[in-house]
Amino acid sequence: MNIQDLKLKLRSFAEEREWDQFHSPKNLAMALGGEAGELLEHFQWLTEDQSRRLTTDQTRMAKVSEEVADIAIYIVRLCDKLDIDLESAIENKIRANAAKYPVNLAKGNATKYTEFGR
Amino acid sequence: MNIQDLKLKLRSFAEEREWDQFHSPKNLAMALGGEAGELLEHFQWLTEDQSRRLTTDQTRMAKVSEEVADIAIYIVRLCDKLDIDLESAIENKIRANAAKYPVNLAKGNATKYTEFGR
Amino acid sequence: MNIQDLKLKLRSFAEEREWDQFHSPKNLAMALGGEAGELLEHFQWLTEDQSRRLTTDQTRMAKVSEEVADIAIYIVRLCDKLDIDLESAIENKIRANAAKYPVNLAKGNATKYTEFGR
Amino acid sequence: MNIQDLKLKLRSFAEEREWDQFHSPKNLAMALGGEAGELLEHFQWLTEDQSRRLTTDQTRMAKVSEEVADIAIYIVRLCDKLDIDLESAIENKIRANAAKYPVNLAKGNATKYTEFGR
Repeated sequence: MNIQDLKLKLRSFAEEREWDQFHSPKNLAMALGGEAGELLEHFQWLTEDQSRRLTTDQTRMAKVSEEVADIAIYIVRLCDKLDIDLESAIENKIRANAAKYPVNLAKGNATKYTEFGR
Repeated sequence: MNIQDLKLKLRSFAEEREWDQFHSPKNLAMALGGEAGELLEHFQWLTEDQSRRLTTDQTRMAKVSEEVADIAIYIVRLCDKLDIDLESAIENKIRANAAKYPVNLAKGNATKYTEFGR
Repeated sequence: MNIQDLKLKLRSFAEEREWDQFHSPKNLAMALGGEAGELLEHFQWLTEDQSRRLTTDQTRMAKVSEEVADIAIYIVRLCDKLDIDLESAIENKIRANAAKYPVNLAKGNATKYTEFGR
Repeated sequence: MNIQDLKLKLRSFAEEREWDQFHSPKNLAMALGGEAGELLEHFQWLTEDQSRRLTTDQTRMAKVSEEVADIAIYIVRLCDKLDIDLESAIENKIRANAAKYPVNLAKGNATKYTEFGR
């Protein structure tokens, strides 16, 4: 399933239920924020190492999978409503990040990450 | 670009910069939460109608496109780190939503949305 | 109850349960983000007018009151852990906002809020 | 400054600038979510230990203090708009948490925190 197909599928889903009236960009941004909060809750008391080992906890993984799916769904819906080409947006962002953090400077230095504690 | 390709591209990007050490699931969930917060800021003082007309504001749209790209990127990174098949997770979630909100009940009723104010 | 008393009360609460180990500033910021997400969920599908009339819905108000209490609790805990004097921080922020948005300029103009749609 | 005084101060601040029109509960919840996201960004790439040592970084602490003040301000504004008595809400929540996590059970056991990894 590519992003374009997913967009159309979610559009039909909302139209069939007459939910478009609720799906203003403002509301979709809020819904996405709500799901991002739920995702945080799964990780808030875990150490980083525990978060890496979450893969062994099937119950928790099932829930985390649902949260990430919800977030992905709202992102695609929001892009549909705002006529954003998500694929292009992602490609542009990766290109911008590559320019901002060139390998030779970012590697073993990574100022983005080491601002703290210098 | 499909999700699988994007996953591999982002993985290389992080490995080349030795950023994997920072990309624990816990930290990626936080980074996603931070970007979701930035997205909210674009919409917080807009009416729903103004949010629908944001498409005419190119400056703002450029920024919103960056936020949604950031969120999409972190979702894909998180799924990579947790071995979540994002496509399957999305498909499962759509299927679950379809069962939870059947068209004949959700349409023109939409209890999900009208709990308030009945 | 003033903020200082609340801070001490919450500190005892955590110490008695040996929860200090979980209450790193990083984790408290995440927990606060999670609660902020829960708060969003109560409002995401409401119109602004419906959100103003939420006061008539006692069931919902009880839940919203819990969310705002959770957020306030985590803010006070975080300030305790980071030695932030919350009262001073609030007073400084109000003073800074007053300088940034002088009444004569902000009133009936409110550029902060009307950037969109001009 | 107690919460009641702060509430009145912030109310005047908004009224003088005719900002009440923007301060629907829905919008205030979004603004709070946006600030919670900014707070997350300060901590997302830090280890828990680094987050505990943030107190030595005055530049960063000044910013974090502003974020927590913003969150506190929005919480108080939201409670004013929804007629929530924040002090009572906090006291009720602490009482509920004490009942939910009695010291003898929560201490050295803390099921709330150790659900993971058992």
